[in-house]
Amino acid sequence: MLDTTRVWPPGITQFVHRPGIVDVGPGYLDPSLLPVDALRDGLDAAARTHGPAILAYGTNLGPLPLRTLLAGLQSRWDGTAFGPEHVVITGGTSQMLDHLTGTLAAPGDVVLAEAPSYNWGCGIFQDRGLDVVRVPGDADGLDPNAMERRIDEQRRAGRRVAFIYLIPTFHNPTGRVMSRERRLRLLEVAGAYQLPIIEDNAYRDIVLDDATPPPSLLSLAERRHVIQLSSFSKCLAPGLRLGWLSADAGTVERLDASNLLISGGCLNHLVALTVLQLVESGWLDDHVTELRRALAARRDALAAGLREHLPPGFRFAVPGGGFFVWVELPAGVDDAALRDAAERRGVSFALGSAFEPPAGTGAIRLCFSLHAPETLRAAAERLGAACRDLVAG
Amino acid sequence: MLDTTRVWPPGITQFVHRPGIVDVGPGYLDPSLLPVDALRDGLDAAARTHGPAILAYGTNLGPLPLRTLLAGLQSRWDGTAFGPEHVVITGGTSQMLDHLTGTLAAPGDVVLAEAPSYNWGCGIFQDRGLDVVRVPGDADGLDPNAMERRIDEQRRAGRRVAFIYLIPTFHNPTGRVMSRERRLRLLEVAGAYQLPIIEDNAYRDIVLDDATPPPSLLSLAERRHVIQLSSFSKCLAPGLRLGWLSADAGTVERLDASNLLISGGCLNHLVALTVLQLVESGWLDDHVTELRRALAARRDALAAGLREHLPPGFRFAVPGGGFFVWVELPAGVDDAALRDAAERRGVSFALGSAFEPPAGTGAIRLCFSLHAPETLRAAAERLGAACRDLVAG
Repeated sequence: MLDTTRVWPPGITQFVHRPGIVDVGPGYLDPSLLPVDALRDGLDAAARTHGPAILAYGTNLGPLPLRTLLAGLQSRWDGTAFGPEHVVITGGTSQMLDHLTGTLAAPGDVVLAEAPSYNWGCGIFQDRGLDVVRVPGDADGLDPNAMERRIDEQRRAGRRVAFIYLIPTFHNPTGRVMSRERRLRLLEVAGAYQLPIIEDNAYRDIVLDDATPPPSLLSLAERRHVIQLSSFSKCLAPGLRLGWLSADAGTVERLDASNLLISGGCLNHLVALTVLQLVESGWLDDHVTELRRALAARRDALAAGLREHLPPGFRFAVPGGGFFVWVELPAGVDDAALRDAAERRGVSFALGSAFEPPAGTGAIRLCFSLHAPETLRAAAERLGAACRDLVAG
Repeated sequence: MLDTTRVWPPGITQFVHRPGIVDVGPGYLDPSLLPVDALRDGLDAAARTHGPAILAYGTNLGPLPLRTLLAGLQSRWDGTAFGPEHVVITGGTSQMLDHLTGTLAAPGDVVLAEAPSYNWGCGIFQDRGLDVVRVPGDADGLDPNAMERRIDEQRRAGRRVAFIYLIPTFHNPTGRVMSRERRLRLLEVAGAYQLPIIEDNAYRDIVLDDATPPPSLLSLAERRHVIQLSSFSKCLAPGLRLGWLSADAGTVERLDASNLLISGGCLNHLVALTVLQLVESGWLDDHVTELRRALAARRDALAAGLREHLPPGFRFAVPGGGFFVWVELPAGVDDAALRDAAERRGVSFALGSAFEPPAGTGAIRLCFSLHAPETLRAAAERLGAACRDLVAG
């Protein structure tokens, strides 16, 4: 029997285990996939390599060798050339979203986001007094023409649109990938209105099939007016609070001259130097390969369970990457009522309404990264039973 | 001969060593005072204690045991009772200043700060579009009556004062300690105008004499309308990017519910759990005792050198704590001209004008935490020669 208070110590981790409930709600990694020994080795290697410099104020933009390696990764992802002059180490995506909101927008401004979109990211904008206006999409991602209409509406209403926030690749919560055509059209629209885009790239490296995602918005835009945020939270460990920003060299220079970075130096210096060792040695590449294999097996187990147990009318697509399966509910089935029924059956999930899908569409988000395949099959079975409880009830 | 590129590897640390120059400008810790082995031991102990939980999303406010220990430290500092409900772990003071600016103020607002005050901190406010208005003080710290006049002036001019930013204890750049009487009077003024105070407490633990500083503004205000930021950057290591915020329980609850913390969890979880081990074991207490001894010796070496070598008219007070000696220049001596002369003599320092002292007063800031005592004596001798070059020239 798993000692859950050992795995999720109360007062230490964000996740709180509820006895008897398999919670496929949060987008967490299974603790068994978190490489504790590698991190210790990384810190040892960093200490041997750099000595006390690991504890000094780090250079503002982050360790140059790490920025260079990440630029190389970005070049391989996108098939275009990136250099360290395009990369800044961050204290994680949330930290940099919080910072950028203050740089790009003022209270009362509008930010355009997908319907649905990452709830806590949009919450960071709302905490800063921004109004999040939603743009719908479909299986090919956000609809750029709908985006254009929204911009026009907002401008006619006399409101300032500050920026666009998108997750084009392995979207949270839907798992969708925006098509190359849509990406190009979106950039046309954003360019015409001179609107900056924040491209949340957190799941880019969690590729679970052979299909390669299209080049990023950043790359397709030739880095103009796109700020991309990538993360070590999904491919390595969220407790690190480490990520990176990619943008044009001018944006990077402005960050280098920001008082936030001058005052504290690199936003997470010690951890950046530790992770540098894991990237430099090739360990991270191997880890990501293994992680993809483990996550693909989990995704497949969940999808097989859902196919077997969900009643007719509950629809989902198998995502090609990321952490999530988005299940669309039949008309008249309420996500909160379904969760109540599900928790009585011993399973829980994230309410689709938290991510604000277009009005009138119900959905739930299931995460396959937190649990073992057999647990996910059991979760799907319990969820299927709950769906039938509700539809029958 | 010290291999300086090994100590300050280019592209890794913020500090760039210039051959032939002893730079007493930046407020850095001497690399020989940065405890690399202890940090490695701390991570090992954290991994043994918590396993993969060190790499999961951390609980929003930071590890409860660390918050409890820091509340205990705060209670000892102030002689009043603090609990974990008053403490939030931060990603360093700069990160939280950046965040709080967005919470407390909007572009165009005024922030009141000391003349002089921490330049990059004020720069973070300016980067967010705030106007920093200065309030003068003297050896007893900021003048609360001058503060009251400034608030009145700003309000009459139709401007919103968003908050007050102060460093009452071992001030940067002056090293001064605001007297208890001034603290109480300041709280009266701030209370009358309902103005929140950010109390920068970074140097509180760097006590170099027997005199205990007065209780913090946070404590004297019984936690009403004061948010205090403390740091591990001065007493342990700046590359950690770890600090803590202390405030009333309501402010802490609001942070717990902020999307920044919900999205990413604890702002620096892995490092917080590592440092927890060092605090819990008592290691940090011993380290701070040793660090104070080392820094007092450096302060004394610098002060002795200055007394011996500075020509008449150059005045300084020996600070009771912190990292800095603030040297006031005779009328007509320009800080930038003095630095040019000093660099020709092989020493550099921070320009007083960067910290914006009241108009017409010239000063320079010397830091004694970065160099060995003998190096500081040599720096003082070179500085004295430069002063004479300039006064004679």
